[in-house]
Amino acid sequence: MRNLTQDTITQAVLGRLAQTPDPRLKEIMTSLVQHLHAFAREVRLTEDEWFKGIEFLTACGHKTDDKRQEFILLSDTLGLSMLTVAMNNDKPQGCTEATVFGPFHVENAPHYEHGEDVANGAPGEPCIVRGSVRGLEGEAVPGATIEVWQADADGNYDVQYEGQGEHRARGVLHAGPDGRFHFRTIRAEAYPIPHDGPVGDLLRATKRHPWRPAHLHFMITAPGYERLVTHVFRDGDPYLDSDAVFGVRQSLVADWKQQADGSYLLEFDFVLAPERPAGRRQGAAAAKAAA
Amino acid sequence: MRNLTQDTITQAVLGRLAQTPDPRLKEIMTSLVQHLHAFAREVRLTEDEWFKGIEFLTACGHKTDDKRQEFILLSDTLGLSMLTVAMNNDKPQGCTEATVFGPFHVENAPHYEHGEDVANGAPGEPCIVRGSVRGLEGEAVPGATIEVWQADADGNYDVQYEGQGEHRARGVLHAGPDGRFHFRTIRAEAYPIPHDGPVGDLLRATKRHPWRPAHLHFMITAPGYERLVTHVFRDGDPYLDSDAVFGVRQSLVADWKQQADGSYLLEFDFVLAPERPAGRRQGAAAAKAAA
Repeated sequence: MRNLTQDTITQAVLGRLAQTPDPRLKEIMTSLVQHLHAFAREVRLTEDEWFKGIEFLTACGHKTDDKRQEFILLSDTLGLSMLTVAMNNDKPQGCTEATVFGPFHVENAPHYEHGEDVANGAPGEPCIVRGSVRGLEGEAVPGATIEVWQADADGNYDVQYEGQGEHRARGVLHAGPDGRFHFRTIRAEAYPIPHDGPVGDLLRATKRHPWRPAHLHFMITAPGYERLVTHVFRDGDPYLDSDAVFGVRQSLVADWKQQADGSYLLEFDFVLAPERPAGRRQGAAAAKAAA
Repeated sequence: MRNLTQDTITQAVLGRLAQTPDPRLKEIMTSLVQHLHAFAREVRLTEDEWFKGIEFLTACGHKTDDKRQEFILLSDTLGLSMLTVAMNNDKPQGCTEATVFGPFHVENAPHYEHGEDVANGAPGEPCIVRGSVRGLEGEAVPGATIEVWQADADGNYDVQYEGQGEHRARGVLHAGPDGRFHFRTIRAEAYPIPHDGPVGDLLRATKRHPWRPAHLHFMITAPGYERLVTHVFRDGDPYLDSDAVFGVRQSLVADWKQQADGSYLLEFDFVLAPERPAGRRQGAAAAKAAA
């Protein structure tokens, strides 16, 4: 295997993957190498451009730590995250739609009881959130684990504050016996994704804005049901049609109603998909793609 | 732009790139997004696999510092580096072929005079290297800058030694008035690319060995000529046909002859391509691809 040319190298690399024991890894690497090489050939990538790519990935890696995930931001802004979500969440009709996970979830958020304030001091307009978790047949899902997280009035998640060790505007609750829940928080506001790193540089170079419409993140899990990762968006937000990460679904846009006392009320009912055997989640999508 | 599906999201992302002022950046990003999405669709990437990819890139970034370049290792082992070199170095017949740059070049290597020992204490079999730098018409290229770097007898470059601040087995020389040069060093040995990081994990998972055949790196520059980045390989090396980074070219394999005193002698003559206007370097290759 000497003297490989631009016409023969792809097959040579694929040949080197032939002994991969895990068939799925082999499938993924084979496709990845083919598309990576096809990209380089299509644009006739120069050596300087190749090196800029190396430097860009390096900068993303160095920007990433336990509070900042530049590669997720990159995936989000290139639409790869939403594409992956769309392929893997072709849920039955009537279920709440999924959207991107984002880079701001943290493990071990504090637990709250119904009615408590998850804001925990985060600045913002007071807001009450209430709703229910049900299955496709309308059945309540008692005890469902509901994790919420959001940006504050300044457009920041708690993890974006330097030296701020406390969990704010995030928490974990459990649905009651009737599948219902309620908690206090602050009104979510639109915010720019972190753009002081290489992904921000890329957005500027492509004349894209970094804004996401206001939203409250939910991750809901319960035995017998598929995990739901989604947001509820705020109706009227100017960025609903140009979300920097392509995550808006009309069914997730809700009216956050201002009350007589000036506070806000968000009501939203979630419908979980029944758990399906592995591989089934993509079934309907794959069938459509083949059609 | 709401409710994007796996069938509509790619066009939506491309639309978001429409205002990119730099046409080349727009071309590259457009192609990149299309191939990235095509890859995800082709393998029907799951959310867990997507997250493993994020973790893999993060680990590559965290492994990379001023002495270790995991993204170059990744590009090298996926054949992207050699593909890029091949596309950009379609030199006229008779010129010395190029190969991969690799991750071990450092700026500001020490200067040496002819006959001096660039090894500077690096362990290995003594070796004399001599040769010439010429142009396509056979003309000497006096004063050409010749940068060399290599691994030692233990298969390590100087930068791979923890806390070893000295430059060893690397240096910069200049061709004499007749285009000739000679210096002392150590015999290059085969070595495994650094495989204690995520790229090493990937090689193991795909049952690939990390070895590169023994080689001495050269980067040669001179006004009026194209920069040449190449290696000279050692004939008889067992890894010449399975170089982990796909870089071997038969024209770069030389006999490193053992002398009566036990030391080695490598003789190699380099032929530089004349400088061509920007865009011309890929000309011949592009014409072939179109044919």
